[in-house]
Amino acid sequence: MVVIKVLVTGAAGQIAYSLLYSIANGDVFGKDQPISLVLLDIKPMMSVLEGVFMELQDCSLPLLHEIIPTDNVEVAFKDIDAALLVGAMPRRDGMERKDLLKANVKIFENQGAALNMYAKKTVKVLVVGNPANTNCLIAMKSAPTIPPQNFSCLTRLDQNRATSQIAVRLGLSCSAVKNVTIWGNHSSTQYPDTTHANVCNNDGNVTVYKAVKDDEWLKGGFVQMVQQRGAAVIKARKLSSAMSAAKAICDHVRDWWHGTSEGHWVSMGVISDGNNYGVPEGLIYSFPVTIKDQKWTVVKGLSIDTFSRERMDESAKELVEERDMALEFLSKSA
Amino acid sequence: MVVIKVLVTGAAGQIAYSLLYSIANGDVFGKDQPISLVLLDIKPMMSVLEGVFMELQDCSLPLLHEIIPTDNVEVAFKDIDAALLVGAMPRRDGMERKDLLKANVKIFENQGAALNMYAKKTVKVLVVGNPANTNCLIAMKSAPTIPPQNFSCLTRLDQNRATSQIAVRLGLSCSAVKNVTIWGNHSSTQYPDTTHANVCNNDGNVTVYKAVKDDEWLKGGFVQMVQQRGAAVIKARKLSSAMSAAKAICDHVRDWWHGTSEGHWVSMGVISDGNNYGVPEGLIYSFPVTIKDQKWTVVKGLSIDTFSRERMDESAKELVEERDMALEFLSKSA
Repeated sequence: MVVIKVLVTGAAGQIAYSLLYSIANGDVFGKDQPISLVLLDIKPMMSVLEGVFMELQDCSLPLLHEIIPTDNVEVAFKDIDAALLVGAMPRRDGMERKDLLKANVKIFENQGAALNMYAKKTVKVLVVGNPANTNCLIAMKSAPTIPPQNFSCLTRLDQNRATSQIAVRLGLSCSAVKNVTIWGNHSSTQYPDTTHANVCNNDGNVTVYKAVKDDEWLKGGFVQMVQQRGAAVIKARKLSSAMSAAKAICDHVRDWWHGTSEGHWVSMGVISDGNNYGVPEGLIYSFPVTIKDQKWTVVKGLSIDTFSRERMDESAKELVEERDMALEFLSKSA
Repeated sequence: MVVIKVLVTGAAGQIAYSLLYSIANGDVFGKDQPISLVLLDIKPMMSVLEGVFMELQDCSLPLLHEIIPTDNVEVAFKDIDAALLVGAMPRRDGMERKDLLKANVKIFENQGAALNMYAKKTVKVLVVGNPANTNCLIAMKSAPTIPPQNFSCLTRLDQNRATSQIAVRLGLSCSAVKNVTIWGNHSSTQYPDTTHANVCNNDGNVTVYKAVKDDEWLKGGFVQMVQQRGAAVIKARKLSSAMSAAKAICDHVRDWWHGTSEGHWVSMGVISDGNNYGVPEGLIYSFPVTIKDQKWTVVKGLSIDTFSRERMDESAKELVEERDMALEFLSKSA
């Protein structure tokens, strides 16, 4: 089987530390798919990255054809099949939202340019570093020779969190809950929507609303819990989510690679063409999608009630503002 | 399928953070085996453990039947099928080896007693916390109603490190290298032995010695590299091995549960009955074993040359000293 080349950025960081093993173990690209794993981080992290490199060796993984730790962008992006852009500038105390966005625009403009110059044109790109939707947009715009459909950002963690909370509430396995949708921005304006979600319980296949029998919670406490889950994990662990983020990255990329199963959809932040659910054209917005032959298609024709409409619009509004601010930085840095 | 109950101690720590997902994902006990996962740590770690609990929920794992975070030993050990004893007192600056051992004897005496009182009599116990061999011995001695054969300590990380270094040296996949043996203590006296190991290369199945063609390295630099690999990872990462330790734990327990494949052996620290390779009776010593029906058997009849003999004896000597010191603490604390 032909080796595929997979890049992970922020490779010396916490999320990557949880992620790299699963990739190298075949959980994402397949149990018979040999992998060349490229680990990019900034120069000050090279010693830590050397330790990660050693540990990946020590995992003794048959699929791991090659490990390439580097701080060189050309080496990192050269001929890659997949780019998992995990690294970003984190928010520090006292940092304004604008300054954070500015720093990230610079990073993702550079990485978009590197994708454009060095990666395969078929490369699949997943942006995880926050603000993920807008970082993804900047990378996409900076890589004009790569199809916009090849760019996505992570909202699968939100989907997994939402799915799990429904399952916990009903005392069911997570696999009994399907088609929870995450709309919008991977931020506190995201909208976890269970209107079209189903559960398989003793009554057979029923809607989540019928099974839970608590509309107030599904539109209130549940939505807020999912929106604020990241902060709650930080409060408890004193560190942001890494294990669960890594799991969601694996789910996202695996489904993109191998497709979604019949009757199931997943949520991904992808480019809006302006024709779906009243979301403005040109945003990276989280939609329900099905995937076949490594191509995603937005699920059509879902009914949107007034409650959902408001939440979806609110998240779109936030994304428009983020985009406009980011594009201003982009044009200045160009 | 009947749910099995798996305990991980030190559950708020770094190794557990890398390990829990793989267990809950089915990598260890099987892809159709539902799991009740018990997370034990000390009281000051309960907030972090709550974060880990949340993240495990957020991973949305169908096999994860139940997650039980606790600092209560009875809750933790009740009716468990497997105990992965990862937590131990770590060495702190200025701490004497004797004091470290004393603190760990207390921990593993208590955990052995808890196994004895609360766990299933069929429980399989893996000790990871260092000094792993001697901690395992103390737990075993403190649990007289559980068969000694149900206790083991981890030397699979050493085996994986050794296997991988041979593969790297020969430019082969790790799966091409088999039957590297780790003898003795999981410490710097361990002896990674390639005398009986084979590789599958272009010449077919040949011995590692024939393939590598560098006896000096196999008896020198290679042995030292494996012995000191843990320290090298700490030097680079500023943190001890977690990802690779977790992977080795998974390998160890998976093989114990499901058996070794035909013609392959693995290394585990297990009780010496005094009849194999001149290792004193009653030590927990790493041997090559094959596993069938969840029972390990020491591989018999391997020829031991003078070089190997010396290294195996040196490690046994260290273990005798550790044991004698530990038993002194044990009788005092009883």
